[in-house]
Amino acid sequence: MGYVTDPRVDRGRLGQEMATLAELGATPAGAVTRIAYSEADRQARDWLDAQFTDLGMSVRRDQAGNSIALLPGRDPGLKAIALGSHTDTVPEGGRYDGSLGLIAALSCVRGLRGAGVQLRHPLAVINFEAEEATMAGATFGSRAFVGELDPAIIERRAFDGRTVRSHLEAAGLEPRAVPEAARGRESLTAFLELHIEQGPVLDAAGVPIGIVEGIVGIRRYAVDFPGIANHAGTTPMADRDDALVKAAPFVVAVRDAAITHGIVGTVGTLQVSPGSPNVIPGGVTIDVELRSADDGMLTAAEQDLRQSANAVAAELRPLSAKAPERFSRRILERLGSVCEQAGLSHRRLWSGAGHDAGLLASITDAAMIFVPSKGGVSHSVEELTEQEDCVNGARILLEALVDLDSSLS
Amino acid sequence: MGYVTDPRVDRGRLGQEMATLAELGATPAGAVTRIAYSEADRQARDWLDAQFTDLGMSVRRDQAGNSIALLPGRDPGLKAIALGSHTDTVPEGGRYDGSLGLIAALSCVRGLRGAGVQLRHPLAVINFEAEEATMAGATFGSRAFVGELDPAIIERRAFDGRTVRSHLEAAGLEPRAVPEAARGRESLTAFLELHIEQGPVLDAAGVPIGIVEGIVGIRRYAVDFPGIANHAGTTPMADRDDALVKAAPFVVAVRDAAITHGIVGTVGTLQVSPGSPNVIPGGVTIDVELRSADDGMLTAAEQDLRQSANAVAAELRPLSAKAPERFSRRILERLGSVCEQAGLSHRRLWSGAGHDAGLLASITDAAMIFVPSKGGVSHSVEELTEQEDCVNGARILLEALVDLDSSLS
Repeated sequence: MGYVTDPRVDRGRLGQEMATLAELGATPAGAVTRIAYSEADRQARDWLDAQFTDLGMSVRRDQAGNSIALLPGRDPGLKAIALGSHTDTVPEGGRYDGSLGLIAALSCVRGLRGAGVQLRHPLAVINFEAEEATMAGATFGSRAFVGELDPAIIERRAFDGRTVRSHLEAAGLEPRAVPEAARGRESLTAFLELHIEQGPVLDAAGVPIGIVEGIVGIRRYAVDFPGIANHAGTTPMADRDDALVKAAPFVVAVRDAAITHGIVGTVGTLQVSPGSPNVIPGGVTIDVELRSADDGMLTAAEQDLRQSANAVAAELRPLSAKAPERFSRRILERLGSVCEQAGLSHRRLWSGAGHDAGLLASITDAAMIFVPSKGGVSHSVEELTEQEDCVNGARILLEALVDLDSSLS
Repeated sequence: MGYVTDPRVDRGRLGQEMATLAELGATPAGAVTRIAYSEADRQARDWLDAQFTDLGMSVRRDQAGNSIALLPGRDPGLKAIALGSHTDTVPEGGRYDGSLGLIAALSCVRGLRGAGVQLRHPLAVINFEAEEATMAGATFGSRAFVGELDPAIIERRAFDGRTVRSHLEAAGLEPRAVPEAARGRESLTAFLELHIEQGPVLDAAGVPIGIVEGIVGIRRYAVDFPGIANHAGTTPMADRDDALVKAAPFVVAVRDAAITHGIVGTVGTLQVSPGSPNVIPGGVTIDVELRSADDGMLTAAEQDLRQSANAVAAELRPLSAKAPERFSRRILERLGSVCEQAGLSHRRLWSGAGHDAGLLASITDAAMIFVPSKGGVSHSVEELTEQEDCVNGARILLEALVDLDSSLS
């Protein structure tokens, strides 16, 4: 690549830094709890910021709490190439989700510094706040960064019943100022995120690198099944209007519609009212989630399910709909070449999970690199990505960064 | 019937007394909340005890909190005929469930006193404690009275999460002494309970009096459906082990088994774990309740359901099983004659609900009289039995009492 010393990922240091970060918010069970805006996440953020500062980067926090480290490029007229992910976790989450992307970005900066390389473009590393769905939905920080945050969310309940406002205020942030985080969005020319797959595809196939086509579209619904609560002993079967007996076949219909249309579909919650062993269910509420890379298939499945719901006098109520987000075709092609040059096999795949990169794609050329998750397990103490796979991912991230730096105009 | 003045039910007074009792524990919604061992139930109990005391009865509370009013008979060698029901209610319960049986018994005593009649047998009126399933199961007081209370229940959780012990202690009762309530069980020769049907049969048929054959058998089970919790976006349909998708057809199988075997069957609760819209259900627990007058049909349905559960690697775990309890054939025949003499049509039916009389049947000749529940609705502010039906019930109760007093040897 034309440098005196090619920049390299320090495998040992990457492993140490993953371990150091995992200690911040470590739980007795060996998991990590770094809820967004919590003290544990602040510690992780401070530690990372200090690493970047030591490497000569200027670090700032924006109005949403995102940390942005910046290294000047050789050409002051160019916009920045950004790497990033998130330090926040779900309660009792894993050590790799989010963390790997940032530690790998740190390895990249170290690699560049170690080789005495200054890129043409400024380099930003962004540690987004609240990527996990703890703050009344996911990707709070990156939504704010790209200017897509609905301000109404501030007054909603976070995962713990407190308002999002109270979490922001406890972290020293001014809730009204959060939309100003979007001021930084004009400064980027590309965004790359390395992340664990959180699914079984790469692990099962034995492929070390996934090049992510995009983020699937997600549609969420609630369905209320009406019924009449009545005594379970004294009400003959013929006289019943049992809400659960109506909801149950619908759960199976969601599975069937997903299979039919080649998407994924899940009923993850089901509430029975009044919920007593001796009372016929008078009402059932479920949520339905459909995800696909193909918006047309989402619409087709939705139509099937609307019909199934109507057949039992229930209504499929849309809660949210996010269209599939396709990553930059140009960067995906570059990533393919980088993998080939590095001698690492790769597979193209869609991300079934949402990520900060999905938001960034709306303001700049963005892409993601996946590495295998053992058994596809994530959001759990069992989450595991082998050291070898972490290093491979960081290496592709670094080489892609260098490649983009030279190839982007 | 050979008295100078036949004893009669005072319809106006019965209505007034039903209204007075309904005020104790009245809720803003117009329902009644008199949880067992609560202050509201104590007030109801005190008020009723005072009425019986005013009528010359001696009143005592036993170790379970049951109130027992006693009127001596002409023949000191005879055991007592008892009437009874309960003042306690479910939260936001109705004005008739339990209350009618006691106010009607009060009318009977008033009727006897008003006509200057002393029965041959002593007459007891028992206000059982905790008939409703608030104290870790139903019929706590009558189970204690007949000597069938499992002492382990004392440490279990009541409806509000507190232990049964704490409720007993708050009511001034000594938990260890509760089994001593069974000392009174030898003193009875018969037990009669008037109650609202809490089902739709009499109301739909326009029949004023139900003569209850017995209490249906009840079998309760829990079923745990195993699954593997996983990301709802990243896990392909083919790789899923979704506990809810296994539980759903089982809910329908319970309904179908009940219809097939001519019983009633209900799934009243269903818990999804972890219960998040974006996580595939890793476990589902449901309860199943089967009820029938025919124990053989319960066994047949149970066999079907065991098979259905096993087919998805789940297990039908028995929680409790109570065989059908048939009431005294002799008393049922007397009740039929009493209705004919009174010119009131009647129907024989089974009680799908448990009642104190079902427990009393294990220690003495017992029977129940039902009156119609409007629309079959119960345990609700909508619970309603017309004044005319309340009076008819009280009248049959009084005439049956007089009839038994002369016919029992």
